[in-house]
Formats: sequence, C-alpha cells, structure tokens
Amino acid sequence: MAYETLDYAVEDGILTLTLNRPAALNSFTVTMAEELIAAYERASADDDVAAIVVTGAGRAFCAGMDLSAGGDGARGVDHRGSNVFGLDESLHPTPADLRDRFEDPEIVAGVRDTGGRVSLAVYACTKPVIGAINGAAVGIGATMTLPMDIRIASENARIGFVFGRLGIVPEAASSWFLPRIVGISRALEWVYTADILSAREALDGGLLRSVVPADALLDTAYGLARRFVDHHSPVATALMRQMMWRNSAAPHPVEAHRVDSLAMFHTSVADGKEGVAAFLDKRPPQFRGRASELPEVF
Amino acid sequence: MAYETLDYAVEDGILTLTLNRPAALNSFTVTMAEELIAAYERASADDDVAAIVVTGAGRAFCAGMDLSAGGDGARGVDHRGSNVFGLDESLHPTPADLRDRFEDPEIVAGVRDTGGRVSLAVYACTKPVIGAINGAAVGIGATMTLPMDIRIASENARIGFVFGRLGIVPEAASSWFLPRIVGISRALEWVYTADILSAREALDGGLLRSVVPADALLDTAYGLARRFVDHHSPVATALMRQMMWRNSAAPHPVEAHRVDSLAMFHTSVADGKEGVAAFLDKRPPQFRGRASELPEVF
Amino acid sequence: MAYETLDYAVEDGILTLTLNRPAALNSFTVTMAEELIAAYERASADDDVAAIVVTGAGRAFCAGMDLSAGGDGARGVDHRGSNVFGLDESLHPTPADLRDRFEDPEIVAGVRDTGGRVSLAVYACTKPVIGAINGAAVGIGATMTLPMDIRIASENARIGFVFGRLGIVPEAASSWFLPRIVGISRALEWVYTADILSAREALDGGLLRSVVPADALLDTAYGLARRFVDHHSPVATALMRQMMWRNSAAPHPVEAHRVDSLAMFHTSVADGKEGVAAFLDKRPPQFRGRASELPEVF
Repeated sequence: MAYETLDYAVEDGILTLTLNRPAALNSFTVTMAEELIAAYERASADDDVAAIVVTGAGRAFCAGMDLSAGGDGARGVDHRGSNVFGLDESLHPTPADLRDRFEDPEIVAGVRDTGGRVSLAVYACTKPVIGAINGAAVGIGATMTLPMDIRIASENARIGFVFGRLGIVPEAASSWFLPRIVGISRALEWVYTADILSAREALDGGLLRSVVPADALLDTAYGLARRFVDHHSPVATALMRQMMWRNSAAPHPVEAHRVDSLAMFHTSVADGKEGVAAFLDKRPPQFRGRASELPEVF
Repeated sequence: MAYETLDYAVEDGILTLTLNRPAALNSFTVTMAEELIAAYERASADDDVAAIVVTGAGRAFCAGMDLSAGGDGARGVDHRGSNVFGLDESLHPTPADLRDRFEDPEIVAGVRDTGGRVSLAVYACTKPVIGAINGAAVGIGATMTLPMDIRIASENARIGFVFGRLGIVPEAASSWFLPRIVGISRALEWVYTADILSAREALDGGLLRSVVPADALLDTAYGLARRFVDHHSPVATALMRQMMWRNSAAPHPVEAHRVDSLAMFHTSVADGKEGVAAFLDKRPPQFRGRASELPEVF
Repeated sequence: MAYETLDYAVEDGILTLTLNRPAALNSFTVTMAEELIAAYERASADDDVAAIVVTGAGRAFCAGMDLSAGGDGARGVDHRGSNVFGLDESLHPTPADLRDRFEDPEIVAGVRDTGGRVSLAVYACTKPVIGAINGAAVGIGATMTLPMDIRIASENARIGFVFGRLGIVPEAASSWFLPRIVGISRALEWVYTADILSAREALDGGLLRSVVPADALLDTAYGLARRFVDHHSPVATALMRQMMWRNSAAPHPVEAHRVDSLAMFHTSVADGKEGVAAFLDKRPPQFRGRASELPEVF
C-alpha cells in the first residue's frame, strides 16, 4: 500500500506512522485524512502491529489544515461549491442531516469534518497509540493528537488550538476529547485565547505525559511502546483500549461491568489460561490470541 | 434595566456583573437569583458583551443563602407554606414531578432549587464567564461559580461547600460540576467535611486557575477576558463554549463530531472566510458575525 | 453475623472493614466477594455506621485473585465447567445475555465478574468509604479500591493493575472508575504496562489522596473519617455520596438539578431546620435523620 502523505513502517511490532509532507510542514489535506483513516484501520487489522507511534517528518508535527490550495489543500476538487475548508457551500446541512444522513456520501464529503473522521478512526483503533510531537502541532495538528492514548513532546514542540483566530471552531471531536484530558476550564481557556502553547505549558496543563530533548523523542516513545508490547496479550490490550475509552464515558458503572464481565470471560478461556500458567511457572507467557479477532463485548 | 441586587456594567466589550448587597455580604436571595438569570440571558443577547467577569461588592463574594429573613431572605414571601429555604412545604414533590412538571410554576417556585436555576443560566450563556472571587464564597456563593468557565481568586478568598454543616446537600447542580472540575475524590472530601478552604487550598485542588493579591484581582480577570475577546469571532467563541460544556459530557465522541461538523460548516461560510483571508494577508481579522444569531448545531 | 474472610468492627460511628486472610495476603475469593457485598449492604442499613475505613490484615492489602485453589480460590466449586477464574466455561455468553439476563443466577454465578459485583456494592453504599491501603494492592486488590471515595496509602503500599501480564483485562468496572480518578491517559498507561506502582507514583498520578508512614495509616484514615462524621447529618452525607457519583456522569447538568432540588426539599424540611437553627444559635446541631431512611430523589 502506497501513501502520498504518510510513511507507514513496522519494526519489531511497533508501527511508526509519519506525517510526511515536510516541505509543507506536514499540513493536513483531505488526502492525508483519508490515508490516516486507512492507516489506522490497517494497523488494527494487522497482527504484526502491537502499538503505534505517530510523528511528523522534518521540523513540524503538523502545521494545521493546508490553506494554500483550493484543491487538495482542503478537499475542494471534488465539490462544485467547495470552499477553502473543502466544505460544499451548495449544501444547507441541519442537525437532522448529521443524524439521519451521517453516512450519506454527500454529507460525508461535503459536510462532515475530515479531522473528526480521523479522530473517530483513532478512537476505534485497537492498538495503543502514542503521539510523538516533534514540532509545531497547530489546529488539526493539535486536535488529531487528542484521541491518541498518550502524548510525548520534544522541547521544540508548540501546540495551538488556534481555531478562534480564524473565526472557526475546534474540530476533530476535540470538544469531547480535550476537556477529558486537561479539564474543562483549561480546555476553554486554550480555545478562547487560541494561543500557541510551549511544550512546558502543555505539560503543566496535563496535555502531555512528558517533554524530552528533540533527539530523545522517538526513543522515549519506542521505549514506552515496548513496555506495552513485550509479553502482553494483544487481545487483552485491544480490549483494554476500547473499554477504557468507551466505558469511562458511560453514565453508570454497570455498563463497564457488563462489558468487562464478557471481556474477562472471553480472555479467561484463552490468553488468560496461558497467563496464569506462566505466572505460576514463573516464566514469560506465550500468548496466542490475535487482536484481529476480538470477541464481541460491547 | 434596574437591578436590586446586582450591578451590570459593560465597558469595552466586557460585562462586569457585581453581586451588590455588600452590607449583607452579598448573600443570596430569590431576587438575586432571578436577577442573575435575567442578567446572563441579557448578556447572551447583547452583542456588545463579548465576555463576562463576575465579582462581589465589598469584602465578600457571596456569603451564601440569606437565612436572615423569612421573606426574600429565601423566597418565602410568595408561598403559603414556604420555609426558611423558600421551599413550599405544603407540596410533596416526587422524582416524577421534577421530570414531568419541570416548568410548572408551582414546581419552579416552590420546589426547584434557585441556585440550580442560576447554574443552568450560566451553562446556557454564550459568552465566556470568569469568576473573580474577591472574598468569602460560601454555600451557593461557592457553587454558583462552578458553571463559570474559569475562577480566579484573591488571596483573601475563602471557599466553602458548607452544606453538610446545615444538614442539607450541595445544590446548584454542583454534583455535576464540581467533580468535573476537581475530580470525584476531592469533591467528595470537600462536601463531606464542609470545610472552609483557603484560596491556596482551592488552587491546589484545581478549583482555581490562579490566586492573586486582592488589588490585582480585577485587572487579572480583565486581562484574561481581553485575550478572549480582541480579534476573536463572537460566533466562534459562543459555539466553542457550548460545544465544550455539552459535548464533553456525551457518552461518545461521535456526538461531538456531529456538532463540530455543523459548527465548522456554518462558521466556514461566514467569519471563517474573513479569518483565513486575514491570516493569509497577515492582518487582524474583522469579524462580522453576531453571537446573538448563532447557527443551530445541536 | 460471622465472616470467613473479613473483620467487621464498628467503633464510635466508624466501621473498620478488614480484609482478613493474612496468611494468603488477603487474596480475593468468591467468598470474600459475597462477604464484601453483604458488608457494604449491612453498613448502608446500619445507622450506627457513619463512615467506613477499609484495610487489610497483615502486610498486604489484597494480593489479587486467589489463583491457588480450583475451588473457592475462584468460585469454581459450584460450577461444572468452571475455570481458574471461576467462570463457567460451559456457557457461551453474549452482550445480550449481560443485558437481558443480568440477574439470572446462571449469569450471575458463571459469567458476571465478582469484582464488578463488589464495585457496584461500594458504588451503592450510602456511607463515605476511605481505603487505607496498607501494603500490596494488586489486580482486584487495586480495582476494588476505585469505587471508594478516597484512598490513603502507607509508604509500603504497592499498587498494580497487572491484568495485562495475565492475558486478561481490568475488571471490577475499573474502566469506568480509573479514568475518572487519574485521567484517561494515565489509566491507559497503567493498564498497558501492567506495572507495579510505588505509593509515590500512585500519589503523583492522582490515585491517592496522601501517603503516610505505615504506623500512621489508620489514624490518618480515622482522623479524616471523623471530620466527615462529627456534627454532620447522616442523611445529607448519604445523599451527597449518591449525588456526586451519579450526577457527575450524567450527560447534562439538568439531571443534577432535578435530583438536588428534591434532595434540598427533603432535607430542608428535616435536618436542614435543625442545621439552620443551630447555625443561628451558634451551637452544634443535633441531627435526627437516619441514613437508613433516605428520601427518594433519583
């Protein structure tokens, strides 16, 4: 599979997904959105991928939506009435359209936010996702990291939820993700000011797990990914990811109890047997389960 | 519009809403509740208001419900059977009443918590709201600040969720707001003990953004509000506020995606065009949108 | 009432619930699960209990599920096809079973996670619950503390969400509780790595309220419990606990407003009268309400 905007490289169970338009500071295009969605789906289906590290080529992580082109700079080429954001101005979408015609190609292509489609793909992914923010992460470059499980940044990183400066709103489902990560008050302050945050400010605000020198960024991310992967059950890890993200937003813990009862049941008759046996034998486990074949627990 | 209990002053786009019963430490009455609700609604409708700073006149922010009077000290004057909290003891309300008769005047006046009605008005407001807590904020004086976006306090501030000392429960929808701001464990400890917290304790617990000397409080609040206002789109800001508060509590990020797709669409054909043009021209944007006329996105 | 696995001791209004299988490091069995559920229900019904401190006998808090026995080590004795986790392998449970047959004895005994049944009992409890983690708290020993209101630990404590090492998933509804307490990113890192955390790491991560020397642990917990109990209304405290846990997960604050309006109404005509009178008289209140007889507010 060839990508125009990404590099997809798997080594030793870890996929490095690199935003790869360095001359354009990896700015976001519709092609990149479609390729990211495809890459996350591919990683979920690929049992050779146990964890994912996402980073940017060159000096930026992702400088935001590419506003430079009327065409793929947004997604305008396909739409008669498309504007600079690639939205089809000949349409008049309503809340009902987003409910009832959610998968209608006209709504998908002309109305639905491309960043949000990427966020939902990250959310649905069954492998741990670590963002390794190597430089500027602005606009969709910032919001696309929110559905990742953990964010690590280089000291050079700059992060900005800058939508307000452009007269638009935070997208990529960030109004769901950002307050969960940094709290509602800080999330509001960051989007109201539209400021560019230093790595240190983002760390203090709880957005980042850690900030490291630029030349240690990928090694830190890989070291962490390694600890998620070695001697772990890919099935258990995939279920954990889905359970934590989905159940934590449920209105009552009984929802989690229903799901984890089933997940425990299914893992206990499979990798759980090997896990307990290995534990009692004091040896590393040899798990056989495949994340590409998960039990239905939701 | 004249207020008995408030001062409503707009300058340079910023509304200062002052709880103004200093002789009674700005203690909360039914009149104050009704005036606060009216003031937040007025601010939402008033395109001259871009942000709101809420503070108290004199040495207190708000010392809690006024228990000194049987009349407006609560809201008793209107109700045959009203008690010191202004609730109509001749009624026998059930959960069904709060569901099915929510807007029934008898339930609104005799049963529904006045603090909660204020909190819902703050929640519905379309302008950023900054609490500038200048002194004691106790009981409803504390809980009324929770739906504000950001709280800043003077070193003199004292904050107490003291309901337990009075044999009553935290109100003003604070069981929804407080755990979102400070976490469930700290929220429970604060309401269980009913302690009065110093500004420092409230800061360490995550309730406050910052604590400043008393004479710097309003300038700090105005400085922050200024950064939310200057060169920002009032429409985008209003949508951000609603999106962050509402979407972050949804059970699934797809809800946010539906809403932000629409909000992006509508802003992209309006203030977003000017925002991008100004960005590309490297000049400050001149937004024309009015927060009093928001697109329907929910 | 006699317990095989617990000690249940009430003194001065505070129940100390001690996991009491020290020779087995208080490891978790089906008997312990059933006894914990019964003990939490008993404490809710017992007006002599105003708060609960949970700790472990000996050097561990709870070393996880007892994997040493095929019988009560899990809950296998009762089930023809039970495995080492006590789950009945002759069953083939589906999401529909957990929805439609949730209370069906076959599903309860052979499928539903015992840890989750304990967590739901803690969640439903009407008394403040403080975990006093005196040593190793691993697996279910860690997750059973999450529905407690507050966790304090000895410097000797070690806490591990180790499920991934065994090829199974975090249970006890922890996918609902853990992200609420420590945030989604940290929760995921802890379950992905399956590491054993030091007390300090757990404190820094927000899981613990405080870490104290081993010999100060119980006194610290009792001191805190005392502050929840003395001169407090048991009815108000019980309502607070339910309101905070339940309402904070609702999708909209109006749910909290409905509940707290009713809770205010009912407490205002009972303990609230004494609370206000005592406050105005500057004397300690004498509350008469009983937590065993709560008004219906949900």
